[in-house]
Amino acid sequence: MVAATLKDVAELAGVSVKTVSNVVNGYAFVKPENRRRVEEALAATGYRPNVGARNLRRGRTGFLALVLPELSIPYFGELAGLVINAGHDQEWNVLIEQTLGTREGERATLGALGPHMVDGAIVSPEALHANDFEELSGGVPMVMLGEHAVDVPVDRVGIDNVRAAEVAVRHLVAIGRTRIAAIGQHPTRGTAALRLAGYRSALTEAGLPVREELIAPALNYHRRDGATAMADLLALPEPPDAVFCFNDLLAIGALRAAAERGVRVPGDVAIVGFDNNEESAYSLPSLTTIAPDKRAIARAAVDLLRRRVSGEEGLAPQQVHVPFALEIRESTS
Amino acid sequence: MVAATLKDVAELAGVSVKTVSNVVNGYAFVKPENRRRVEEALAATGYRPNVGARNLRRGRTGFLALVLPELSIPYFGELAGLVINAGHDQEWNVLIEQTLGTREGERATLGALGPHMVDGAIVSPEALHANDFEELSGGVPMVMLGEHAVDVPVDRVGIDNVRAAEVAVRHLVAIGRTRIAAIGQHPTRGTAALRLAGYRSALTEAGLPVREELIAPALNYHRRDGATAMADLLALPEPPDAVFCFNDLLAIGALRAAAERGVRVPGDVAIVGFDNNEESAYSLPSLTTIAPDKRAIARAAVDLLRRRVSGEEGLAPQQVHVPFALEIRESTS
Repeated sequence: MVAATLKDVAELAGVSVKTVSNVVNGYAFVKPENRRRVEEALAATGYRPNVGARNLRRGRTGFLALVLPELSIPYFGELAGLVINAGHDQEWNVLIEQTLGTREGERATLGALGPHMVDGAIVSPEALHANDFEELSGGVPMVMLGEHAVDVPVDRVGIDNVRAAEVAVRHLVAIGRTRIAAIGQHPTRGTAALRLAGYRSALTEAGLPVREELIAPALNYHRRDGATAMADLLALPEPPDAVFCFNDLLAIGALRAAAERGVRVPGDVAIVGFDNNEESAYSLPSLTTIAPDKRAIARAAVDLLRRRVSGEEGLAPQQVHVPFALEIRESTS
Repeated sequence: MVAATLKDVAELAGVSVKTVSNVVNGYAFVKPENRRRVEEALAATGYRPNVGARNLRRGRTGFLALVLPELSIPYFGELAGLVINAGHDQEWNVLIEQTLGTREGERATLGALGPHMVDGAIVSPEALHANDFEELSGGVPMVMLGEHAVDVPVDRVGIDNVRAAEVAVRHLVAIGRTRIAAIGQHPTRGTAALRLAGYRSALTEAGLPVREELIAPALNYHRRDGATAMADLLALPEPPDAVFCFNDLLAIGALRAAAERGVRVPGDVAIVGFDNNEESAYSLPSLTTIAPDKRAIARAAVDLLRRRVSGEEGLAPQQVHVPFALEIRESTS
């Protein structure tokens, strides 16, 4: 098939080449009737705009990278869908790269990105060190998702994790629980440290002791890790009457471990999660959880990248906190 | 800013243009010291290798598109992760596009792809017509995921849906159920028609009547649609004693609708799903389900594309059936 040209489309539509160009390039101020005729002619001719050439003129590749641990983790699947949509609004197509959440995986992925490939990257790191960022970000504007202990001079978007953890634990205190456990302690995850700090401060604020035996580690944040940690907590001489899990997958695993032992939720143990994965509204019992505004995270990240890519060089690194809410469901009521 | 050239980089690094070229093109056998100096010079000059030109030499863009309904649907999140991994093995980065499963979304996405952007596309269609494919695939090799009624001359990868549905329903017959319902009838989804055909044939084979009132439609295949359909089935004068759901999300919704009405699973109603999402091993009760070999789907799709892209033009369209298994869990035992 011989490729149709702008001129072919213009002739078929009965408009000027300039009008076709305006429609193809997405400019506003094209008369609706002309836009309709051009769109019909575009469809009829199968015209394909040379996006490569257009991006070259703009100095863009037209691609964004989204770097995350694993798409099979529901939080990241849901977030990635929202980033793709937000990217499209800025005429970006989104490449997705998976790191498995290891420092080696994160280093290898960032090291392979370059300005020839993408205009920018949205990175959800779990194990990167501050100097990894400086070493590897060469030339590609980056926005980091989530709060992390590492202090790097890049834009960041996330919720206030300390405050969110406090809200979760205060809710467990408010329903009368006194032996409140935490699942998700982790040696290198930045958000684990922040959620643990919020857990401790909310207990202290309520006049409850922080019992180290009630703080359970999780090697990963998958469902099976939550089940293992919950089994350990329920085997204690004095088991907890509530558990704050650092993500929903841990909480789903904890629900199952409780059910397998005949422990009633919330009767014997109340459970709160974190992330508000779609499945958490349907689990039995449904899960009370911290719900970050994922759509706001996706939009803020893409918007910050747009500002960086369009060359707002003087802009200091931004830290954007998006809203969150506590979704109260059956697992605590 | 004037663009830096390979020569600028070579001068700054104090190495030959050939060495810079070797680093930029990712060839091995560059002395570590030279690699370091080139990388520093690349960063200092902001040099952008013309990957477009490199891939042009190879006749590739280096990108694959994965076109699917929604990443927030766990089946697609899990599958996308596997396609990204399989793509990397062939030096492809994977762009992900979401269609929401509508014909308009699928047409718009395929129409926007072109050989300037991607080397090929892996498409999981839900509503496309055969002539949409012919009209829109212009120049981009495509592999279709799943079985569909539409007869299009492209490679396809999926499981044998009729047989998988028969296996699911035979299992319900084998545990003694006689009023077996189906959730997921749909006017345009190709796999729905195939799964329904398998449901009907397994019932007939077992000497059980096909009762039309036990075949429940689902407008979408989300959890809420399963809950709605199950509520309708349980309100029948003679409710079913088993339900075969056309995906796991429908089954998760059905589990909740049963629990909310005090209907025991599997005591009163046994439930089988389809897809083997990770969450289905942790639901309460855990879900018996058809488990397609998703890794095999991802690998076969990427491998077929590689053959098309490398120009095996004479190859007739392939249809690859990958294995599946019935995972028997608590919801039927």
